[in-house]
Amino acid sequence: MRVAIQGELGSFSHEAARRMLPRATVVPCVSSAEVFAKAKSGAVAAAVIPIENSLAGSVAEHFDLLLSSGLFIQREFRLRIEHNLIAAPGVAVRDLRQVLSHPVALQQCREFLRRNPRIQAAPFYDTAGAVKHVVGNQLQHAAAIAGAQAAAQYGGRILRKGIEDNKRNFTRFFLVSRQRKVLPRADKTSLAFAVRNVPGALFKALSVFALREIDLSKIESRPVPGRPWEYVFYVDILRGEDEAAGNALRHLGEICEFVSVLGIYPQAR
Amino acid sequence: MRVAIQGELGSFSHEAARRMLPRATVVPCVSSAEVFAKAKSGAVAAAVIPIENSLAGSVAEHFDLLLSSGLFIQREFRLRIEHNLIAAPGVAVRDLRQVLSHPVALQQCREFLRRNPRIQAAPFYDTAGAVKHVVGNQLQHAAAIAGAQAAAQYGGRILRKGIEDNKRNFTRFFLVSRQRKVLPRADKTSLAFAVRNVPGALFKALSVFALREIDLSKIESRPVPGRPWEYVFYVDILRGEDEAAGNALRHLGEICEFVSVLGIYPQAR
Repeated sequence: MRVAIQGELGSFSHEAARRMLPRATVVPCVSSAEVFAKAKSGAVAAAVIPIENSLAGSVAEHFDLLLSSGLFIQREFRLRIEHNLIAAPGVAVRDLRQVLSHPVALQQCREFLRRNPRIQAAPFYDTAGAVKHVVGNQLQHAAAIAGAQAAAQYGGRILRKGIEDNKRNFTRFFLVSRQRKVLPRADKTSLAFAVRNVPGALFKALSVFALREIDLSKIESRPVPGRPWEYVFYVDILRGEDEAAGNALRHLGEICEFVSVLGIYPQAR
Repeated sequence: MRVAIQGELGSFSHEAARRMLPRATVVPCVSSAEVFAKAKSGAVAAAVIPIENSLAGSVAEHFDLLLSSGLFIQREFRLRIEHNLIAAPGVAVRDLRQVLSHPVALQQCREFLRRNPRIQAAPFYDTAGAVKHVVGNQLQHAAAIAGAQAAAQYGGRILRKGIEDNKRNFTRFFLVSRQRKVLPRADKTSLAFAVRNVPGALFKALSVFALREIDLSKIESRPVPGRPWEYVFYVDILRGEDEAAGNALRHLGEICEFVSVLGIYPQAR
């Protein structure tokens, strides 16, 4: 089974894919658009995508791509994010003048950077890609910030472990595929909907859940491309395919311009 | 009057600051944290910050900083975003092998990049900073993507104008300061609130507006740092300091763990 991820091998997405599907072959892709296109065409059986980080918030582009691609969420997974300082073998912390990583990772290691003012933070396109770069080019004055699996992938040395400011740092991943499959014990549903731009519209939309005592675990609004200041709402409800959820979705359809079920899956614990 | 912005001179924030406060001296800062710190300490009278782009969505970090800093929104402004291909004088499009810009700008010019596969996209920390870099170093094979004001600031030449995919591309900026000042004709209020993590909590919170026919123009949820999967909600209501809004806020206070008014200001047209 082949599974697409965005970014280089050794990334957090790679780690999440390995944990969800230990035997799958992971196919790295340059862009998220490519990941979704490969999963949609059947070039890969599935894709593993980060959707939300407990500190940085949502990966907005992935919400848009989920909706536009029509791919279905099969599973969710929470990965604890640990950032490490990784360099080529032989490089010591005192040699470092620069540290490369994805901007979100750099932002999550502010305290380390503040305590090491000699080391300049440089944004890089990918955490694992930064390790590949510093190790592959045997840079003597630069390190990367990435997960431990990136060090293993590219033969880097971990100089400092767990340099993230906040240990309660988790990323939520989705396994998505073309198949509209609902696993046994599925107890969570992800939805997208748009309401007419009239007063009270969102309140009415949320009433379909409140009236049935269905709990929401997330709500997110995203602008509609090309229609400034109109929004699509992304909501997770803590229900699978039961009668109340079915009634709520039918009721929501009466109120909304559109409703799309993005996936029904077992909640990650 | 001195006004702080994040990023280099010539950025879209600079343009927004110039349009809102034509006589102010603009103070560029490396990070958003520095912008807010300067405005809070009084080192500058105010700050101009992007809060939301109609295509890319919210600037999540600025919501967090607005809430934690206690700065107050005085005004909002909508800037039409036009991306241009800018290079050092003498460089032609056929010479280009690389184009540098902020990842969001690169993403908004996908069609141009697709039509020019010889030109490789390279993420850079700032749109205007990319122009400063390519012009300052007189790069012969690289251009930047940025607003026209960056070309004027650094003496770059515009090789292609308006290369963004979608012309309905606007960024909303806030002018924030320490003063809790409400301008005449203020008809919009930005709020942050957190609800207890119980079923129907958000629905109850929104009822305080729906019951008084107060329209919401935006809702956004953001994770609470260090408390995974708990959220702060950011809401804009289309009311200033009137009786209904006052009642709604008092009612909201009964329901929520906290309510914070981030600003009351005239709506941008």
